[in-house]
Amino acid sequence: MADVEGFLFPRTATGASSLLPAPPWHYSGVTLTLEYRTDPAAVAELLPHPVEPADDDPGAVAVIWADWQSCSDSFEEIVDPVRSQYLEVFVVARCKYRGQHYSRCLYIWVDRDYAMVRGHHQGYPKKLGSVHLTRPVTVGKAGPRLEPGGRFGATLAAYDRRLIEAGFTITGTSESAGFVNALPMLHNRWMPAIESDGSDSVDELVTMSGYDAEVGRTFTGEFDIRLFDSPVEELTRLQPRELIAGYWREVGVSWRGGTTLERRVAPPM
Amino acid sequence: MADVEGFLFPRTATGASSLLPAPPWHYSGVTLTLEYRTDPAAVAELLPHPVEPADDDPGAVAVIWADWQSCSDSFEEIVDPVRSQYLEVFVVARCKYRGQHYSRCLYIWVDRDYAMVRGHHQGYPKKLGSVHLTRPVTVGKAGPRLEPGGRFGATLAAYDRRLIEAGFTITGTSESAGFVNALPMLHNRWMPAIESDGSDSVDELVTMSGYDAEVGRTFTGEFDIRLFDSPVEELTRLQPRELIAGYWREVGVSWRGGTTLERRVAPPM
Amino acid sequence: MADVEGFLFPRTATGASSLLPAPPWHYSGVTLTLEYRTDPAAVAELLPHPVEPADDDPGAVAVIWADWQSCSDSFEEIVDPVRSQYLEVFVVARCKYRGQHYSRCLYIWVDRDYAMVRGHHQGYPKKLGSVHLTRPVTVGKAGPRLEPGGRFGATLAAYDRRLIEAGFTITGTSESAGFVNALPMLHNRWMPAIESDGSDSVDELVTMSGYDAEVGRTFTGEFDIRLFDSPVEELTRLQPRELIAGYWREVGVSWRGGTTLERRVAPPM
Amino acid sequence: MADVEGFLFPRTATGASSLLPAPPWHYSGVTLTLEYRTDPAAVAELLPHPVEPADDDPGAVAVIWADWQSCSDSFEEIVDPVRSQYLEVFVVARCKYRGQHYSRCLYIWVDRDYAMVRGHHQGYPKKLGSVHLTRPVTVGKAGPRLEPGGRFGATLAAYDRRLIEAGFTITGTSESAGFVNALPMLHNRWMPAIESDGSDSVDELVTMSGYDAEVGRTFTGEFDIRLFDSPVEELTRLQPRELIAGYWREVGVSWRGGTTLERRVAPPM
Repeated sequence: MADVEGFLFPRTATGASSLLPAPPWHYSGVTLTLEYRTDPAAVAELLPHPVEPADDDPGAVAVIWADWQSCSDSFEEIVDPVRSQYLEVFVVARCKYRGQHYSRCLYIWVDRDYAMVRGHHQGYPKKLGSVHLTRPVTVGKAGPRLEPGGRFGATLAAYDRRLIEAGFTITGTSESAGFVNALPMLHNRWMPAIESDGSDSVDELVTMSGYDAEVGRTFTGEFDIRLFDSPVEELTRLQPRELIAGYWREVGVSWRGGTTLERRVAPPM
Repeated sequence: MADVEGFLFPRTATGASSLLPAPPWHYSGVTLTLEYRTDPAAVAELLPHPVEPADDDPGAVAVIWADWQSCSDSFEEIVDPVRSQYLEVFVVARCKYRGQHYSRCLYIWVDRDYAMVRGHHQGYPKKLGSVHLTRPVTVGKAGPRLEPGGRFGATLAAYDRRLIEAGFTITGTSESAGFVNALPMLHNRWMPAIESDGSDSVDELVTMSGYDAEVGRTFTGEFDIRLFDSPVEELTRLQPRELIAGYWREVGVSWRGGTTLERRVAPPM
Repeated sequence: MADVEGFLFPRTATGASSLLPAPPWHYSGVTLTLEYRTDPAAVAELLPHPVEPADDDPGAVAVIWADWQSCSDSFEEIVDPVRSQYLEVFVVARCKYRGQHYSRCLYIWVDRDYAMVRGHHQGYPKKLGSVHLTRPVTVGKAGPRLEPGGRFGATLAAYDRRLIEAGFTITGTSESAGFVNALPMLHNRWMPAIESDGSDSVDELVTMSGYDAEVGRTFTGEFDIRLFDSPVEELTRLQPRELIAGYWREVGVSWRGGTTLERRVAPPM
Repeated sequence: MADVEGFLFPRTATGASSLLPAPPWHYSGVTLTLEYRTDPAAVAELLPHPVEPADDDPGAVAVIWADWQSCSDSFEEIVDPVRSQYLEVFVVARCKYRGQHYSRCLYIWVDRDYAMVRGHHQGYPKKLGSVHLTRPVTVGKAGPRLEPGGRFGATLAAYDRRLIEAGFTITGTSESAGFVNALPMLHNRWMPAIESDGSDSVDELVTMSGYDAEVGRTFTGEFDIRLFDSPVEELTRLQPRELIAGYWREVGVSWRGGTTLERRVAPPM
């Protein structure tokens, strides 16, 4: 009988096998944020009681592509990039809880297992997907420059079906990268009981923010976006009614934990 | 504010987006089970208190490849096979808890997101990997026949490194497929608290078995196996000291839930 | 200066690095053949001069999924299955050349590099794709049995877009697996000149057949099929006008070479 | 009977299905070049008659990672990045032919089908592989800065086995990115005859260079590199004896064709 170690499973005598290293986790990358308004009811129906719609502009959503490198405090993943590079795309709305406003991830897809499970820890409902985002270049003809007129494409597929495709064209520099994903996150962490009878072992409302956030070059622009159907997705319920704006930004941030706001648990046994 | 639905996240108004459909889940496939004895201390160090080593043959482990199709009770995944086919390889040992013996999965890799997260629900510490297993054939020269002399290969890689490779040769038919993975499973389900301070929101000991198990053709044989190092794996601590036997078997089983034996929870908030 | 060895590039002193081992190549697997009639003009427009449409039923095409293991005469790939297992889907029509009828592959996608380049050698216009085909099972609920009522799904995607999806239901056993892919193949092998000016270094018409073909269990059935658009595909020009029949069959075959019927070459330099 | 169109197969009435669009092809990206000296005999044995070793420093090789976006003259691939982004790693040496010196690709792996086949057209002996290269960042902690001390990792795997891993640390800026890959390329283009009897339909020596080359930021640094075995690779015959230097560089280039220097063809039929 051992006292096993490790931030996550598999826990072992040394902890070296854990699917995730312990936080802090560091992230550096690029985000493309496309903000639009959808039917507010389509957002509201995704907010579990007692989370409420945002007071202002409750139909505003952001679809965000991110092209990351990430690592633990050992930084060893950076020089073994198969363990540090991944892409993700996620849909965010704002919501209200106990009178305070938050951002909330509604849907998210990512292309690596560690990033998927790290997201589950944080309350992101991550699935695996195939995510692509045009990169800017500084020389040659095969890519946009970071300047007005620079054109980017961004796509998502899962289970061999394209789910989202979007185009973005820079119109100028920007101070901000939008308002929808700008608040602390409010997520549910759900773990169904092994009994699989509809009960949850734990149902938590958590909040979190990164720290040491740094922003680099930021641009705004025009965009178009198309959402497609799948037997196991509901993105087309979030069709755009009105486009707001798009933003491309360099981002660095670290994360070391969040705060449990509410925890409903099954009884100890 | 909605009452969201879905067995797992993302939970929505309809439940259609859930990464997992609700159980029961049905499985049909083939397993290759390679049983050997390792240092009993290498098994014992992986058993968290109060789980104990098995009384008899505590160093016996099984490395099992499985080539599955699986589906929910709608059976729709069967005709969209990108959502039903996957391979996995897992390492099992036996253990004892409250005087009763169980099987327990120590390590496991799988090649699809739904199978990975389904495993997390069941307490399997699943990571993504690249898993391959020779298939038997009935015509032509490009594969073994299910008869003495039939040779199979089985491999695992993760993060672009080969972790296991094995060979198996049928010597005859068999009534059993080994003894290591033959008991109800005893797993821990761990969910670290969002505070990420080393505490767990929930730490459960669960047990489960499938139902409606059906076995098909079963063969025994000789095998060899090689375990390799990785910066994030510890398989080489489980080096074989003595090979026992290998088994190839057709298996069908269904699963609808397990039983929580022990639950330690963080206090409700 | 060495005399380099190897069936294909990279050629080296030993030949061990060749992307392809030398033939013969052995194949064992399963095919799902869906035959239908499309507009004969849609087939004719894909036949390069002097290849002509078939005399009878010139709009008949077959869409064929194949789930293979393959190997060289060393058979070593069989026990390293990452080098032997692949799936492909291809579209075949019949045609006529110098008064004789042949089968001809119009389009084809495969999921492994060696199978792709092996196809190029044989005149198959192979691209990479994601190919899935339901497998029959003998136990459990997660798959069809090889008997009337058994239902299969078959899909293709490339560049993150679904291109084909089909369903097949067994109605009974069958002697044949259709007539469209039943003749020797007639393929063009094209290699554009490095000058990339529209000229070809070599433009060959070749024919070939396997040898030691063995067929196993064969079933016929009903099917449905849907073809989808992509910016770099033209499958939707081959829409079904009339379904003929579907066939599931176990197949083994070997291949050691073909015959050049016609060769147009750029002048030696 | 149609006159089919398309730069490469599958050729169709419109040309839209061709696996490759017609040149010119444009490339923008980043290269990491690691130069070292190996046994000159290990290079010489890879040069087919009448290609000879370079006069000076004939054991010098470069192992080069490249992280590309590429596109045709339509530029449409740029905004559908699943069709434009890929990574490759290749091994280059210098050689001599008819008294003139050239660079020559000995081995190369790439992660996309279009890039693989485009390489075959150019005489690159491309296989598929899993290629990773650390990217520099401008904000956050999860990546190196483009400045002295910036550390990068670079890896290659194929068939689930790691083949190369390397580390690189910037020491300063640089005017050049090395001398091994700095000459026009001299490649063989081989196409075995369909008869598969050891004869080639075409065996060409070709040369080519890009045009409109642009270089961006360039850095030099120290590196380490490890080469691993595989049953189908021979990289370990090229072990380093002496490290020269490493270079990180932004590169843009276009390509529209090459020149056939020598062509041996099988007789027309």
